[in-house]
Amino acid sequence: MKSRVEDVTYMRRALSLAMRGTGYTSPNPMVGCVIARDGEILGEGYHRRCGALHAEREALMSAAEGVAGATAYVTLEPCSHHGKTPPCAPALVEAGIARCVVATVDPDPRVSGRGIEILRSAGVDVSVGVLEEECRWLNRGFIKGALAGLPWVTVKAAISLDGDMSLPDGKSKWITNGTSRVKAHLLRSESDAVMVGRGTVTADDPALTVRDAPGRSPIPVVIGGVDENRRVFLDDRCIIYTKRFAGLKGERVIPEKNGQVDLETVLRDLYGSGVRRLLVEGGGRIISSLLNDGLVDEVSLFVAPKIMGQGQTMTPGMILSSMEESMNLSLISCRGQDGDLWLEGVFPCSRDLLKR
Amino acid sequence: MKSRVEDVTYMRRALSLAMRGTGYTSPNPMVGCVIARDGEILGEGYHRRCGALHAEREALMSAAEGVAGATAYVTLEPCSHHGKTPPCAPALVEAGIARCVVATVDPDPRVSGRGIEILRSAGVDVSVGVLEEECRWLNRGFIKGALAGLPWVTVKAAISLDGDMSLPDGKSKWITNGTSRVKAHLLRSESDAVMVGRGTVTADDPALTVRDAPGRSPIPVVIGGVDENRRVFLDDRCIIYTKRFAGLKGERVIPEKNGQVDLETVLRDLYGSGVRRLLVEGGGRIISSLLNDGLVDEVSLFVAPKIMGQGQTMTPGMILSSMEESMNLSLISCRGQDGDLWLEGVFPCSRDLLKR
Repeated sequence: MKSRVEDVTYMRRALSLAMRGTGYTSPNPMVGCVIARDGEILGEGYHRRCGALHAEREALMSAAEGVAGATAYVTLEPCSHHGKTPPCAPALVEAGIARCVVATVDPDPRVSGRGIEILRSAGVDVSVGVLEEECRWLNRGFIKGALAGLPWVTVKAAISLDGDMSLPDGKSKWITNGTSRVKAHLLRSESDAVMVGRGTVTADDPALTVRDAPGRSPIPVVIGGVDENRRVFLDDRCIIYTKRFAGLKGERVIPEKNGQVDLETVLRDLYGSGVRRLLVEGGGRIISSLLNDGLVDEVSLFVAPKIMGQGQTMTPGMILSSMEESMNLSLISCRGQDGDLWLEGVFPCSRDLLKR
Repeated sequence: MKSRVEDVTYMRRALSLAMRGTGYTSPNPMVGCVIARDGEILGEGYHRRCGALHAEREALMSAAEGVAGATAYVTLEPCSHHGKTPPCAPALVEAGIARCVVATVDPDPRVSGRGIEILRSAGVDVSVGVLEEECRWLNRGFIKGALAGLPWVTVKAAISLDGDMSLPDGKSKWITNGTSRVKAHLLRSESDAVMVGRGTVTADDPALTVRDAPGRSPIPVVIGGVDENRRVFLDDRCIIYTKRFAGLKGERVIPEKNGQVDLETVLRDLYGSGVRRLLVEGGGRIISSLLNDGLVDEVSLFVAPKIMGQGQTMTPGMILSSMEESMNLSLISCRGQDGDLWLEGVFPCSRDLLKR
């Protein structure tokens, strides 16, 4: 039976399973799998962390009985190649899966379609494209990585109605309310790394950890040399990018561009270290540089309904000479946060990158 | 029969009638009236413009038959004193109205309650407080005027996500989309006057008229002397406030405060000219001055999901030294406008002013 409603129902469950891996799977994607037959779920699983079983293997192992003739719902094309674990497509065939519903093909052009080929040539009925947009959005870091060799970059900022990230002297505690700050920590938990400039470290000494929400803390990344007594260094994984060697813990020296650390090189290096989702928390100079270089995919703004007057804005280092140069985002959500607003937008070219 | 549901239903109709007077009644309030008996509307009316019949008179005149024993629903306490028209409370008594439902008392402490007294002492059953908050919000200009001798001041601005009203060179066409601009013209049509600074007139030469929406154009008001060939002067009602006489058409000289035209005096003068709702459309210097002087009640922001970099912000002339000094607004609405956002907020002290 091929019921579209049933397909969507099981795929939604597979997607929600996949989400449980948030923050733990990079450089692998988040994947969920549900195995069902005659309206009954026989097994399910998800990729828990890099190095652990793939979702399909977990689902097959969780099934108490045989799955012959069942349908497997997978949020990403089953893999065809030997990695840290044996490939999943042949495993599904071997278990006797009769039909496989795949949300989307593997984004990597070198392997895309191979898993589906293995299934089809073994007589498995394969459908592709159920909840595809949602499943690709969940793995936007993995997909951008596969296509561009760069992490998906989300700029996060807390601003006042009149656009300030802080007062002229740098004070900013607190612009937004506690509910917004919890959401900001959730954003960190979804990210593999969180980046700030040396100015932010010097002024605010942030720990950049996930405290007000569940989840794993991202790798702290600092652009520019800073004192080693700063809180970011409490995390041994901390990476400091400099343009000239300063002997710091976790330091990586990057060639300069226009006198600054070249941020595209930084992003490629982070990609090489397994980072697929990067959260940028400021300050304005880093945000401006990333925007100027076209390296930002998504913007997540917490807006407090207050007026702060003159202050430090999000984009001090960006100077446009005509309105045509302004960078348009597509708003993807606007939510109330106990009086604050949380706006999320994506740049159209990044959104297009996710389309198959 | 006193049915709460019936009361609210008829009062909502009276309120919608009152709204039809938007932009035409100042310095009078917008008032609507419905006369009903046994589930049937016998007559209805609203105050169409300053100088025209009061809502109660219109409703009585519109009734084809007698209204003896009927209930009158009025969005504001019927007047007790002879103004341009004879008082309404005695007229309702005379017509034989048995019950009168009043949304809210007259805000003017000198006459508040007198109309209700006249009705009650004539044996009319009076209920007060149905849809009170909505009816007071509609007449926030009239109420603030009665209590403070000042117009209700709404600051309107179109900004980018990073808080710019324009690029560094003043370019701003267009930050927001056509849908937002229609709403901005509706805001003008709700206002008795629209204020800008000389800088805005010099840079943009706006007409400040209502073109993209129905309704009456507000009186153009400019702070500071400008060339007489500017478009604001096409409206004969245009008022120019200067600190030293320059012989301009519509000029009014106002004492200075800290070297600037004193804006509180300007607002009192506009109140004296019948202005109850004032829309401020910038630029940043005027907005900052009004905010600094605590003269703003409401903020209406059209936010375009774009990044404009460094630019002219809403509040260049406001410098705070601590976060405690930031001015908090209560968000009253956040609406999508074809991709833009429209945020409306009110300062808590202004909201409290409207409470009875």
